[in-house]
Amino acid sequence: MARSKGLTTRSEDYSAWYLEVIARGQLLDDSPVRGCKVLRPHGYAIWEAIQRQLDDRFKATGHENAYFPLFIPMSFLSKEAEHVEGFAKEAALVTHHRLRAFTRPDGTKGVEPDPESVLEEPLVVRPTSETIIWHMYGRWIDSWRDLPLLINQWANVVRWEMKTRPFLRSAEFLWQEGHTAHATSAEAVEEAVKMLDVYTEFAENVLAIPVLPGRKSARERFAGALETYTIEAMMQNGWALQSGTSHFLGQNFARAFDVTFQNEAGERELVWATSWGVSTRLIGAVIMTHSDDDGLVLPPRVAPVQVVIVPVYKEADKETVLGAANKLFRELKGRFRVKLDDRDNLRPGAKFFEWEQKGVPLRLELGSRDVAKGQAFAAKRTGGKFGLDLEGAGDRVSEVLDAIQAELLERARAYRDSMIYSVDSREAFDEKINSQPGFYLVPWGGDTADEVAIQEATRATLRCLPMEQPSVEGLTCPLTGKPSVEWAYFARSY
Amino acid sequence: MARSKGLTTRSEDYSAWYLEVIARGQLLDDSPVRGCKVLRPHGYAIWEAIQRQLDDRFKATGHENAYFPLFIPMSFLSKEAEHVEGFAKEAALVTHHRLRAFTRPDGTKGVEPDPESVLEEPLVVRPTSETIIWHMYGRWIDSWRDLPLLINQWANVVRWEMKTRPFLRSAEFLWQEGHTAHATSAEAVEEAVKMLDVYTEFAENVLAIPVLPGRKSARERFAGALETYTIEAMMQNGWALQSGTSHFLGQNFARAFDVTFQNEAGERELVWATSWGVSTRLIGAVIMTHSDDDGLVLPPRVAPVQVVIVPVYKEADKETVLGAANKLFRELKGRFRVKLDDRDNLRPGAKFFEWEQKGVPLRLELGSRDVAKGQAFAAKRTGGKFGLDLEGAGDRVSEVLDAIQAELLERARAYRDSMIYSVDSREAFDEKINSQPGFYLVPWGGDTADEVAIQEATRATLRCLPMEQPSVEGLTCPLTGKPSVEWAYFARSY
Repeated sequence: MARSKGLTTRSEDYSAWYLEVIARGQLLDDSPVRGCKVLRPHGYAIWEAIQRQLDDRFKATGHENAYFPLFIPMSFLSKEAEHVEGFAKEAALVTHHRLRAFTRPDGTKGVEPDPESVLEEPLVVRPTSETIIWHMYGRWIDSWRDLPLLINQWANVVRWEMKTRPFLRSAEFLWQEGHTAHATSAEAVEEAVKMLDVYTEFAENVLAIPVLPGRKSARERFAGALETYTIEAMMQNGWALQSGTSHFLGQNFARAFDVTFQNEAGERELVWATSWGVSTRLIGAVIMTHSDDDGLVLPPRVAPVQVVIVPVYKEADKETVLGAANKLFRELKGRFRVKLDDRDNLRPGAKFFEWEQKGVPLRLELGSRDVAKGQAFAAKRTGGKFGLDLEGAGDRVSEVLDAIQAELLERARAYRDSMIYSVDSREAFDEKINSQPGFYLVPWGGDTADEVAIQEATRATLRCLPMEQPSVEGLTCPLTGKPSVEWAYFARSY
Repeated sequence: MARSKGLTTRSEDYSAWYLEVIARGQLLDDSPVRGCKVLRPHGYAIWEAIQRQLDDRFKATGHENAYFPLFIPMSFLSKEAEHVEGFAKEAALVTHHRLRAFTRPDGTKGVEPDPESVLEEPLVVRPTSETIIWHMYGRWIDSWRDLPLLINQWANVVRWEMKTRPFLRSAEFLWQEGHTAHATSAEAVEEAVKMLDVYTEFAENVLAIPVLPGRKSARERFAGALETYTIEAMMQNGWALQSGTSHFLGQNFARAFDVTFQNEAGERELVWATSWGVSTRLIGAVIMTHSDDDGLVLPPRVAPVQVVIVPVYKEADKETVLGAANKLFRELKGRFRVKLDDRDNLRPGAKFFEWEQKGVPLRLELGSRDVAKGQAFAAKRTGGKFGLDLEGAGDRVSEVLDAIQAELLERARAYRDSMIYSVDSREAFDEKINSQPGFYLVPWGGDTADEVAIQEATRATLRCLPMEQPSVEGLTCPLTGKPSVEWAYFARSY
């Protein structure tokens, strides 16, 4: 692909392209704190759109929001053995609660942690909240009447990551974490799968990202889970991005925090648990799925600005054009996230460029000739220009935005489907995944050791065991030579 | 007042009453982390209602949301001298980024901060974000065209408080903090005052809390501000609650972080700043302003459940009654936050009690005789029972909720106004404020030393210098004997 408007193209350098799209879209910036980023207004507004639409879905499925402490006593983390194993290496620890002033030998002043303020027990800045939440559930759950308990939390979490990448991996990130408690194992599994379905539907209908729903292999499970469900998306470089997970936690956390309930027969039983979450990583998924060599492309349902109106005028027709632009703005304002760009100190071309970089799905240009024709000149961010009648503009804009939303999903799905491959031998796999990254669907028969060996040789991992499982009877696993057990997707991933 | 339904009354023990109202309303719970509380679903939902309605107001006044890191390098805090002074004593400090396992002498295992993971520079968990935000503003602001910059953040903050009280004071709390940058001093002052107006209007129209808007005295200003504006509410014990503040920060943070802009004449100037915030403390204000000796009372605009429908039936008429209740529920569902309490295992009386404790403004009981009459039996949480026609119930419910909202504001205003006092001598003040807590409006003429002396003797502080300032010409300050300079409110406060 040709270099376009000074942006590195995807084919030239995919990683550089991703960083440039983010910088030009003013989505995120580096911060002076290692591994932490700043979500700029245009980036944060995507998160707000995600939040509202996901939150509606959580509430429609019976969940309520709550808020639990940021800090977790260090000893809590150790109560579930696998859990502490999973998070100990990236735990940010609060050890003091006061600063004191001091004077340096050169006479300048500074502050330092006050040694008199050391905490009795260090606090972990939450990497996830199972432990503190299950401690609280122990106080709230007593009888079968208290179940199910269906709670979600919108929060920041911290995992001290050494390698970071904007939106995909950082020391602090924003997410939601659902934590539910149930009377039976079957009900908890049903909940975990239901929330995976919510994520799948949301990814497709709101983010326009087709995803593969499935289960993780034992090796890739969440620390403390009996089963981890996942949705896997494909980026334009053929790499997978884990975009949301839902865990069936069995009775592990109930056991660790001694959470029991009295069943209808009057006996005490341990409670069953799930947890599930998505994060600001979804913004990275949106950027990488839809953007092109001209920069950011956003699906209308999460675009902070869905429509921008750019009046194009000379001094002589300024009043007419601005009048019509304002009228159009007022008409669209209640129904869409719309901007009227009437800045006087920028040329139209510069405005077009800026809004393009910000991924605005629909631009409406309005010049005096357009006004005379009773039209705006419409340009879709996904390509295509046409006259749009000012009369009844609202309904027409609504149709165009819906069409763009559908077009993006279709395009992403066609692209994804074109990159799902099969192989008939380990040799073919090792060679092909280098030149043709994508999802490799195989009738898998291996174990954890086989997964490790494959990752070491190819950097590919088992992304998921898809929910849909046609029969593998009589098949042999091409990657291990063992009898096939179930279908699995392998891919390189972020 | 008589003891009611087992709740401590306000007159018996105001503090105990407050804690019981919160516990029975299931708003908040203690956590295992010192000074940190858990916002339970019914409490968090009040915060969600506050957030949405405030956020709409911020956006309508041109602000955008963003998100800045939780952690602030220790050295940043010291860059503004007064600021570090204000926050050093309650700073939670992250010093390590990893846990390691160890074995105790008795053979048991544990985890501890890994000494190999000590951070080069400790990080402060944000107590407020001026420093990190102004560091970023230095990267984003270059020209007058970049101004004003109007950003808000919804976030958690941590201030290591030794004395905590639910909602009013805790180590971690949720809030919003606006941070704006301007080309001129006048514009920044205008912004700070505008946001105080937004808070004032919001407190009255949404929370039904009448507030006194004013300026803080030099002694009570935010650490680093040239002027702090405040809204002060009065609780039912006559104590003041500072409910929101807006600061004119001058060029202090621009100077500390070297943030300049090129003005239209081509010269570089330091940028002018404001910041403003409200927190989950507002939930405490709502509880203490409106609740009564029967428990929680919530204004309809922030009530998580505005209307509860309780069907009252016997086995014989169950179908008829539940059918009518469901029909009513469907009719109200799109317009209100409504619950249908059709639990089979609770008697109607127990349900009434539960929803009363949760502060639901309007209860609609529906029995077979009501259904036959085409009515529900309505009970307002603020008192008053009447038949409500099922035909056109939506419009009628809307009217009733508006009336309750107005009634609560009126009642709170009348109460507040009845507790504004004047005094003509320091002796009278010292005596009266003990027996009659409230707002004392005086033509003040003192200084910081006088404020300290008054606080030491009476525990009362200068709450604000009200925005409305009639002339004090010729008056003498009754508290100091000095010539009056401006009107001031004194009160005891949380």
